[in-house]
Amino acid sequence: MEGSFVSNYPYPLLKRPPFSWDRDENIAEPKVHEWIQTLPVNHDVNWENYDISILGIPLSRSSISASAASENPEAMRREWKSFTTYNIDYDIDLRDLSVVDLGDVKQHVTDIALCHQNITDAMVAMRHHHPHLLPIMLGGDHSITAMLVKGWKKAHANAKIGILQFDTHFDLRDVNEFGPANGTPIRNLIESEIIEGKHVYNIGLHGFFNAKSLKDYADECGLNYTTLREARKQGIEHVVKRAIDELSKQVDTIYLTVDMDVLDITAGPGAPAATPGGMRTDELFDAVYIAGQSDKVKAMDIVCLDPHKDQANSTVKAGVHVMLSFLSGYVNRSSEKSSVR
Amino acid sequence: MEGSFVSNYPYPLLKRPPFSWDRDENIAEPKVHEWIQTLPVNHDVNWENYDISILGIPLSRSSISASAASENPEAMRREWKSFTTYNIDYDIDLRDLSVVDLGDVKQHVTDIALCHQNITDAMVAMRHHHPHLLPIMLGGDHSITAMLVKGWKKAHANAKIGILQFDTHFDLRDVNEFGPANGTPIRNLIESEIIEGKHVYNIGLHGFFNAKSLKDYADECGLNYTTLREARKQGIEHVVKRAIDELSKQVDTIYLTVDMDVLDITAGPGAPAATPGGMRTDELFDAVYIAGQSDKVKAMDIVCLDPHKDQANSTVKAGVHVMLSFLSGYVNRSSEKSSVR
Amino acid sequence: MEGSFVSNYPYPLLKRPPFSWDRDENIAEPKVHEWIQTLPVNHDVNWENYDISILGIPLSRSSISASAASENPEAMRREWKSFTTYNIDYDIDLRDLSVVDLGDVKQHVTDIALCHQNITDAMVAMRHHHPHLLPIMLGGDHSITAMLVKGWKKAHANAKIGILQFDTHFDLRDVNEFGPANGTPIRNLIESEIIEGKHVYNIGLHGFFNAKSLKDYADECGLNYTTLREARKQGIEHVVKRAIDELSKQVDTIYLTVDMDVLDITAGPGAPAATPGGMRTDELFDAVYIAGQSDKVKAMDIVCLDPHKDQANSTVKAGVHVMLSFLSGYVNRSSEKSSVR
Amino acid sequence: MEGSFVSNYPYPLLKRPPFSWDRDENIAEPKVHEWIQTLPVNHDVNWENYDISILGIPLSRSSISASAASENPEAMRREWKSFTTYNIDYDIDLRDLSVVDLGDVKQHVTDIALCHQNITDAMVAMRHHHPHLLPIMLGGDHSITAMLVKGWKKAHANAKIGILQFDTHFDLRDVNEFGPANGTPIRNLIESEIIEGKHVYNIGLHGFFNAKSLKDYADECGLNYTTLREARKQGIEHVVKRAIDELSKQVDTIYLTVDMDVLDITAGPGAPAATPGGMRTDELFDAVYIAGQSDKVKAMDIVCLDPHKDQANSTVKAGVHVMLSFLSGYVNRSSEKSSVR
Amino acid sequence: MEGSFVSNYPYPLLKRPPFSWDRDENIAEPKVHEWIQTLPVNHDVNWENYDISILGIPLSRSSISASAASENPEAMRREWKSFTTYNIDYDIDLRDLSVVDLGDVKQHVTDIALCHQNITDAMVAMRHHHPHLLPIMLGGDHSITAMLVKGWKKAHANAKIGILQFDTHFDLRDVNEFGPANGTPIRNLIESEIIEGKHVYNIGLHGFFNAKSLKDYADECGLNYTTLREARKQGIEHVVKRAIDELSKQVDTIYLTVDMDVLDITAGPGAPAATPGGMRTDELFDAVYIAGQSDKVKAMDIVCLDPHKDQANSTVKAGVHVMLSFLSGYVNRSSEKSSVR
Amino acid sequence: MEGSFVSNYPYPLLKRPPFSWDRDENIAEPKVHEWIQTLPVNHDVNWENYDISILGIPLSRSSISASAASENPEAMRREWKSFTTYNIDYDIDLRDLSVVDLGDVKQHVTDIALCHQNITDAMVAMRHHHPHLLPIMLGGDHSITAMLVKGWKKAHANAKIGILQFDTHFDLRDVNEFGPANGTPIRNLIESEIIEGKHVYNIGLHGFFNAKSLKDYADECGLNYTTLREARKQGIEHVVKRAIDELSKQVDTIYLTVDMDVLDITAGPGAPAATPGGMRTDELFDAVYIAGQSDKVKAMDIVCLDPHKDQANSTVKAGVHVMLSFLSGYVNRSSEKSSVR
Repeated sequence: MEGSFVSNYPYPLLKRPPFSWDRDENIAEPKVHEWIQTLPVNHDVNWENYDISILGIPLSRSSISASAASENPEAMRREWKSFTTYNIDYDIDLRDLSVVDLGDVKQHVTDIALCHQNITDAMVAMRHHHPHLLPIMLGGDHSITAMLVKGWKKAHANAKIGILQFDTHFDLRDVNEFGPANGTPIRNLIESEIIEGKHVYNIGLHGFFNAKSLKDYADECGLNYTTLREARKQGIEHVVKRAIDELSKQVDTIYLTVDMDVLDITAGPGAPAATPGGMRTDELFDAVYIAGQSDKVKAMDIVCLDPHKDQANSTVKAGVHVMLSFLSGYVNRSSEKSSVR
Repeated sequence: MEGSFVSNYPYPLLKRPPFSWDRDENIAEPKVHEWIQTLPVNHDVNWENYDISILGIPLSRSSISASAASENPEAMRREWKSFTTYNIDYDIDLRDLSVVDLGDVKQHVTDIALCHQNITDAMVAMRHHHPHLLPIMLGGDHSITAMLVKGWKKAHANAKIGILQFDTHFDLRDVNEFGPANGTPIRNLIESEIIEGKHVYNIGLHGFFNAKSLKDYADECGLNYTTLREARKQGIEHVVKRAIDELSKQVDTIYLTVDMDVLDITAGPGAPAATPGGMRTDELFDAVYIAGQSDKVKAMDIVCLDPHKDQANSTVKAGVHVMLSFLSGYVNRSSEKSSVR
Repeated sequence: MEGSFVSNYPYPLLKRPPFSWDRDENIAEPKVHEWIQTLPVNHDVNWENYDISILGIPLSRSSISASAASENPEAMRREWKSFTTYNIDYDIDLRDLSVVDLGDVKQHVTDIALCHQNITDAMVAMRHHHPHLLPIMLGGDHSITAMLVKGWKKAHANAKIGILQFDTHFDLRDVNEFGPANGTPIRNLIESEIIEGKHVYNIGLHGFFNAKSLKDYADECGLNYTTLREARKQGIEHVVKRAIDELSKQVDTIYLTVDMDVLDITAGPGAPAATPGGMRTDELFDAVYIAGQSDKVKAMDIVCLDPHKDQANSTVKAGVHVMLSFLSGYVNRSSEKSSVR
Repeated sequence: MEGSFVSNYPYPLLKRPPFSWDRDENIAEPKVHEWIQTLPVNHDVNWENYDISILGIPLSRSSISASAASENPEAMRREWKSFTTYNIDYDIDLRDLSVVDLGDVKQHVTDIALCHQNITDAMVAMRHHHPHLLPIMLGGDHSITAMLVKGWKKAHANAKIGILQFDTHFDLRDVNEFGPANGTPIRNLIESEIIEGKHVYNIGLHGFFNAKSLKDYADECGLNYTTLREARKQGIEHVVKRAIDELSKQVDTIYLTVDMDVLDITAGPGAPAATPGGMRTDELFDAVYIAGQSDKVKAMDIVCLDPHKDQANSTVKAGVHVMLSFLSGYVNRSSEKSSVR
Repeated sequence: MEGSFVSNYPYPLLKRPPFSWDRDENIAEPKVHEWIQTLPVNHDVNWENYDISILGIPLSRSSISASAASENPEAMRREWKSFTTYNIDYDIDLRDLSVVDLGDVKQHVTDIALCHQNITDAMVAMRHHHPHLLPIMLGGDHSITAMLVKGWKKAHANAKIGILQFDTHFDLRDVNEFGPANGTPIRNLIESEIIEGKHVYNIGLHGFFNAKSLKDYADECGLNYTTLREARKQGIEHVVKRAIDELSKQVDTIYLTVDMDVLDITAGPGAPAATPGGMRTDELFDAVYIAGQSDKVKAMDIVCLDPHKDQANSTVKAGVHVMLSFLSGYVNRSSEKSSVR
Repeated sequence: MEGSFVSNYPYPLLKRPPFSWDRDENIAEPKVHEWIQTLPVNHDVNWENYDISILGIPLSRSSISASAASENPEAMRREWKSFTTYNIDYDIDLRDLSVVDLGDVKQHVTDIALCHQNITDAMVAMRHHHPHLLPIMLGGDHSITAMLVKGWKKAHANAKIGILQFDTHFDLRDVNEFGPANGTPIRNLIESEIIEGKHVYNIGLHGFFNAKSLKDYADECGLNYTTLREARKQGIEHVVKRAIDELSKQVDTIYLTVDMDVLDITAGPGAPAATPGGMRTDELFDAVYIAGQSDKVKAMDIVCLDPHKDQANSTVKAGVHVMLSFLSGYVNRSSEKSSVR
């Protein structure tokens, strides 16, 4: 972890403060924070070397309930050091991927519309400048999904976009009442005609956390969903595969959005809307691994994780694990890496 | 959520403080605290309109270990606002039921016998005045179950009562040693000949939390039980159905008592006697849903939930979910609603 | 606490659920939640009977750091039951005052400017309809102070307004950069010429929590301040009295704003910006008691209290105590009660 | 800490499990748990060797609010190991005192009256069998004080007993309403004519935590009190000394009762009724040190400390420190040690 | 719980302080702390009466991450009182076993090598003096396993030892880099030729918590392992049985080591290295029950449980349950009890 | 906070991840993490530009009680962002000082002696290579003080070193028994004749946290100390000034060591040995400010702060404040900045 020291640094017994972001190919036990690269200051970078980009979106003032999900990008980065790059479940080492952390989208304190505009613009810029990178967005609350998908559509006007959503909620609340908040992104996208209702697949709904009127809305616009209870009966992996298969026939781009409140409240104390009766972490890891394997899945976000409410960083760790499980699937893609272009 | 304001209230931008208990049929996303009705002050009420009554029993000074389960009725009511009335697992909206919150049974600070008498009297009054209401009691510690069942028996002298119990414990400790405490209610009922041992069905026992002597006592009086480990092998839903079927043949009234310590300690941190190796919340929700479907189940209590020990309100939320899952089953009852009479 | 029951309510042993807001003059130990009155539903109210109004302002999405100060009005109301109306320090019973809780200002999820407009409008309405009431506002973050004082000025165009501020911070950050956030209210008011810098008196600044540039700005506009260290040397009560005396000579209206982060971090864990080296609660209670005694102090707010970060409700309790200590001073005002007109 | 091992114990590298209660005069750093002695099993004990007895009273089901103060005796004993016997503030080593831990008074789960009778009987037994021991009682809630003083009076019918009370509350609530609960002990003793109101001295009252009616009751029966605010102005040590001087002229026995809720809520998170604006620990330690010096102070209790609500054991540690500070004063008594007879 | 009191102890209403370690065959509900015996002071003991010995190893300064696993032995002992001796899952009462708690191995503050030597010597002494006792060691961190197995080998030079390990990690890190730390014990034993790699069976590996290089090392030395994901597919009980069967053919002694971090982070918050996606407690209890049944399993340790990080003692309780579940299996062994010799 | 981006970085809306360490003289509100500089990678540095060096010492496995003080250097660095460089109490801006963060001393997992050697060597290297820098060391536990002072003595053989210590403890325990642990550093230095007992000045001792034998040892070797109680009577600032004056006459170098457990347990929950009755943070900040002013004070450490036990980061914040308060005094030194040479 020490890296190379400058010639006039005379302290052989010291470690450099406090983060080492340089890649070192020879270390025995590479950790995720050593593997994911940040952009060097004042140096050129060869963008073609990268496969994946990570983008933090520290916005949660658009959340219906008070949330510190804005702190999540930093919290997840800080927890990277707890993970190696090697997934023993699938015997996959992520080291062969090149991942760049682009930093965070600038946010304004009191102008939420400007925050949202910046998020859309950031996606447009990523798709415009570096379309070969598969972007992973670390939210932030769920309002960002609408902005990011809008950005994708702006950059790729002809794209036919589907949504694969792991969530306890439909997120179909009325945009007219709440504005572009974290309860409305899917309806926002449908009503602004970025996506079609039938191209949304929600897996994980359960319990008493969605009004009947939202379920009726979902039915009216042909939105697909499988409750967690039903998914367990059929096998979650099977349900996810089927959803991807069906979506793949109808769209060219699947946007994967993981609302961490899909987890059971014991597994996701840091997802304030997580409830009893939710998903186990191992179920979610398997689900995103499968999603990662599909060439059609070209972007992903992780939202509604509030590290201030977390216990022992367990939800933040689960969030990092979700990202890495998705990438494990990505490594296993049969097609060319440039599939996200 | 604003309701109708009085004529001389000139503040259009304000919400009325802080709880709105009035029913409003037209709201898009009804929450449980808007749906369950409290009795209006100084107004008549048409009791016939109701199906279900809720009664808080804020007593836990009869608990062997120090407990604040007395705070649970208020804690559960406060958490109602986190739930809609719609259960997506079964596509059931509870709005069609009418539920009235009767308030709490008065308790005395230092006279536990008087507390217990009041609880019994409250059940007698409910059965006497409004026998068409199915009562749901929010404890309180498990000592209240003995008092409530005694009240039922007092009101319905000829009733043959069985007990369906989800619990980590037998609750068969010696009444002579502990008095009518939270460790003795089932033995209390058996020894006072309100119920017969063979009409008790306990599901959820596990681990090292019952002395051998209590198991021997259970065997001697023919009490039925299935450990959680065995129930999982057979299928919990199956075991619950079988228990209800068997009880239904022998009794006319099944009293359902849910000790929240049946939950695993991670799922029920607010149930102080919850232990490792216990039930998952989704298992418990399924179990009470099935119980709710049976016409024979005519009363229910939820006990031993201490909100002061809870983490992130997860156990209180689970308690509310248990109540609502039971009611989801109730909606699906094939028979007439007046079955509890 | 039972109140009068309706005639057809046959349960003598029950307490009405769960809050009783009616005033009852004969109870032996009146608690604050029984004393402060909410507006009755569907009934007229004689506004002239009241002396004080309380207004909740559940806005904290305008906070620079993620905050749940929006939950504070409800949290403070819930803690009222922990306080009697009698202040033994000064042998004052607040029962002789009549206080009405107006409820909360409506807020929008994603339109902060609209939230702020509603707050200003609410103050205008209060000053227009019921100018005899001294308003106490429960924030919410500190951005609301700018909106409330703007409302006062709108209602009383000729008012000369001064600010007495207990705070760890100047709150003089750049409005152009942050917008009307919780770091900018005083500068906002100065630059919009609602108040003059020399009519602001800040007591409680300490440590490394204000940039030098903000101190320079304060000096340039003649803003008055005394650090906590200096105030303790001179005597906090003395410093507060002097500030009020000086302001009273120059303005006709003093607006008191209490940022709970003025407390030491041990005393104010629920004030996220509280730091080591801050004020003790007894110092703050004395300070607001003195402020309450001045006829010139005609409005008060309590801000930046995030109950989600609190420990054992200690900061929420301190917030309620601040309000009650202020009212204790108000009772002792020598002048007529109508002074706030 | 190893003590002497039995001859056939062949493990030189092991420490005996887990507590060593034997006194060892030669250890360099004696800790309180090594110094305070428990009664040996199956061996005679020379009672004359002891100066002080400690008695645990694990009762809190008589508390108005749910409390686990019943766990306090065990919690305080467990924390003894964090303290040496040497008080550097006064250069006093407690080793010269002999202290015996008698254990806990037996309590019943559901019969509070029996619990109280046992407490009274225990005090009678202590005064009867070993009147030379100064008893220190570790509560339990404040209801025990009434029972203990009644026991003292029963054992010493002619004793004229005064009460020195450090408390945020009067504890003068109506016995008829609450029974012998933790809010009524002083009134209980006055109304049962065990003590006279004028022989009670309460120091530490503050804020909004006593109803006016209780203050009026106190005035009517001539009870003495000094608020914390007033005591600080006069000097707490001075106020305590004066109270003891005055009481000493009128009574032969002063019973010291320390309600830990007299502490500020930050210093006493484990005292559920502690509030903002309370006493600092150093103030309380000084106060009980002075009380310990008086020959008239012949018994002491520490009550209303709920270790389940404590943070980092800080209140339990403060409770142990209170006991040790009192004993530091006791060592300095000018008179003979047999003064408590 | 009272035991027999000495003749001159005149307090019939008191319980002896605070722990009663004497065995009492007649109590109705024996708890684990009453059943497990400590060595009496100054009395001979008949070692032949015992079946099992428990040894605390309070060492965690050899842990790579800061750990208070040194506090675990005391924490587990303190939690024994929460368990009866009766396992209702298997209808087994542990009372028929005789278990002696030997206490803790002496540790040095700053000399880790001496700590480790003492641990090895303690195992040698146990095997030398009382080879009929099956030893259960309560760690401490995982470094102790290497020291304990070395002690066993030293005492039984011809023993062929295999390791059954439940763990999230291989514990195969480089001894040259870390020394005998908690990340290296298995490699330490292999490289010091105490065991062979092929005689290690690790069950429970998952996720991103082992570097690829360690997996390669494991493969090179023929170490056996089954990931948790694979074990669930095959059935955990089946996988454990197969591992024991295979090991039994090749070794004469199986040493069972349970690293509590194998648990999911929600089930094992007190195991600092526990992660999302880990084992459930009921899975672990079943696994060690099976291990307990095998005559070849002759020693067991439980490591890496840090009670300071635990929540509501849930992990400590799980640790005690693991020990008791193992003993439940032991009771069911078909062979003679002297099998561990 | 954005810094200058490289030319081919096309994302104007993004912030660079996640820390910006570059100094930017023009920012309006400089924060401490922007002001303290880390060494640039692969670039030369002009050491002469710096005044102060900061060195992390992540060692706490030498602590008697289990401690994570090893995590403190990183925790304090992470909290720098909560502080500006401007101290309003003294109207001092620290920006004029140049501070370099050297990083952490390398530590070994299982070889404490090697850890200690590295610490001594690091001090020697600092004094050898850059004697003009005043070093501030962030511990780690108190054992490091002995190692650092030994290093100073090794580098400056003729230095006469005194110790100014703010501590609840003497730290004079027996080195023969504990080794170079956190309870022995002062005795270690005296017995190894690095310093003389009479050149130690301890301020802050209180309560029952030092054995009498240690006080006797202190007296025998002429060590100076003032209890907190006595210091408050005399005035803490006065006592600190007098200690420095007296030491200054006898030594040429004063080493300041701040054990954070000197704080009251409410102010220092993250200092595991903090106790009730300790120092307030404002007292400690004043004390170190005075020490910072003295030319004789040439090094400083902050020890025994365990961030894992902290609540709301309050102790870590206090630790950072201590460092900054010391530097505020340093800015005010009358002599030349090169005084530490």
